[in-house]
Amino acid sequence: MRNIGIIGLGLIGGSLGLSLQKEGFIVFGLDVQTAHQSQALKLGLINKIANEQTLLDECNIIIVATPTTVSTSIITSLLDNIQPQQVIIDMGSTKSKICDALKQHPSRKNFVAAHPIAGTENSGPQAAIQNLFDGKKIVICDKEDSNENLLSQIVELFKKLKSDIVFMNSKEHDKHLAYISHLSHICSFALSLTVLAIEKDEQNIFNLAGSGFSSTARLAKSSPQMWESIAMQNKENLLPAIESYIEKLKTLKQNIEEGNSTELISSMKKANEIRKIIKN
Amino acid sequence: MRNIGIIGLGLIGGSLGLSLQKEGFIVFGLDVQTAHQSQALKLGLINKIANEQTLLDECNIIIVATPTTVSTSIITSLLDNIQPQQVIIDMGSTKSKICDALKQHPSRKNFVAAHPIAGTENSGPQAAIQNLFDGKKIVICDKEDSNENLLSQIVELFKKLKSDIVFMNSKEHDKHLAYISHLSHICSFALSLTVLAIEKDEQNIFNLAGSGFSSTARLAKSSPQMWESIAMQNKENLLPAIESYIEKLKTLKQNIEEGNSTELISSMKKANEIRKIIKN
Repeated sequence: MRNIGIIGLGLIGGSLGLSLQKEGFIVFGLDVQTAHQSQALKLGLINKIANEQTLLDECNIIIVATPTTVSTSIITSLLDNIQPQQVIIDMGSTKSKICDALKQHPSRKNFVAAHPIAGTENSGPQAAIQNLFDGKKIVICDKEDSNENLLSQIVELFKKLKSDIVFMNSKEHDKHLAYISHLSHICSFALSLTVLAIEKDEQNIFNLAGSGFSSTARLAKSSPQMWESIAMQNKENLLPAIESYIEKLKTLKQNIEEGNSTELISSMKKANEIRKIIKN
Repeated sequence: MRNIGIIGLGLIGGSLGLSLQKEGFIVFGLDVQTAHQSQALKLGLINKIANEQTLLDECNIIIVATPTTVSTSIITSLLDNIQPQQVIIDMGSTKSKICDALKQHPSRKNFVAAHPIAGTENSGPQAAIQNLFDGKKIVICDKEDSNENLLSQIVELFKKLKSDIVFMNSKEHDKHLAYISHLSHICSFALSLTVLAIEKDEQNIFNLAGSGFSSTARLAKSSPQMWESIAMQNKENLLPAIESYIEKLKTLKQNIEEGNSTELISSMKKANEIRKIIKN
């Protein structure tokens, strides 16, 4: 069957729609916001609008790309009615809670927990872009809980999108992502709030903001619904990450306050080591 | 006279050397690090290596692009020996301390306090790039303290580099820059330290870091010497900026801790307003 269903037609779902059509699939789309559905159809992200039953009737693969807080109930409902050859893939940014919730489901083997390390600060169908997954990592969590044959189908599918597959335990995934992604977003939201508060009456001052500010505050443009959802789902890991970050800030602040140049330079040199890891 | 002197042959000084040569100037360069001097000559950033006396003998315009903590003494020494037609320009990122220090100098009128809103996270002569100032803002502070004719020469010079000139009081400049630039760098240094500390034994995890992390941690690659210098020179404005930032972080953290989705979404929506200001 060359039909694929996508639930959630935002940046990830919409971009998947584009990529999958390019691979010859017929894409059925569903979004709780009917405006998103018609927009996705108009933008050519999907071929048809469908409801849940049609997706179950017509598609062997159904991809769920909704905010993580609603994904579990959507996937449970799909798994409750699934056929043995069908597979549901979740594309959310947090994996542990969803894997835990579905662990005991009789059709757990028909579920693949994935997370594409791809995205931008934009959201909604209009944010969808061609080739979003090209050269990007897609993490698949708790692969031992998925049916082997169904899993290899999905791995093949992701490889067609030119993605690299990484396998990882869902708890490990969430811990790492708290530090290397979720924390960055919180930092950026807080930076935006700080700067908007002080510069509120003089927005023209932002003419002076250079590429440094744009770079660090860019993520503050991200979807509040999506990031509230991620923050709440991954609070267990995110809270200590924010706490450590505040501690580092306090130390830098104290060094500046006390005029301790030696310590400040030493910390900044240590921070420079990120150069080995972020190449561009 | 078509000779221009540059003291400090890093990213800013070196890039200026490239741009000024393109405009037909002969560029004389000086750097306290002799390796930087020969590198700058080899890279074609300057035409000749010169000492301070040669710059004073041969150049009507001398640009100082050194870390802000050493600029004042270099500029004082130049002003002590300057001719009426000569002008010294400082290109540092903090302006209030240097303007205060030079306020009573008998040759203050031969000095122009400038700050190009241009740069990258890289430093040293090898970081110099062609057309760095093209389309960028250059702030000139306390213009009333500079000689009118000399100032117009410099404004013309900067316009030749295709920069937009903005005039501003030095104290205002430092306050705004603390929020829209210096704070971003501190956030980025702290983020890098936090993430390196937790991920120290598993650097391959950074394979998973997406564009969000790269964007927010990019500035942590910046020169410690330069940013220690900026932080110390502008501590008066930077400390309250860091303090406000920590407060915003604590509030977001508390919202997550308490599961207060309404407040968290409301703050994130407010932060989204940065979208009006950062276009890309």
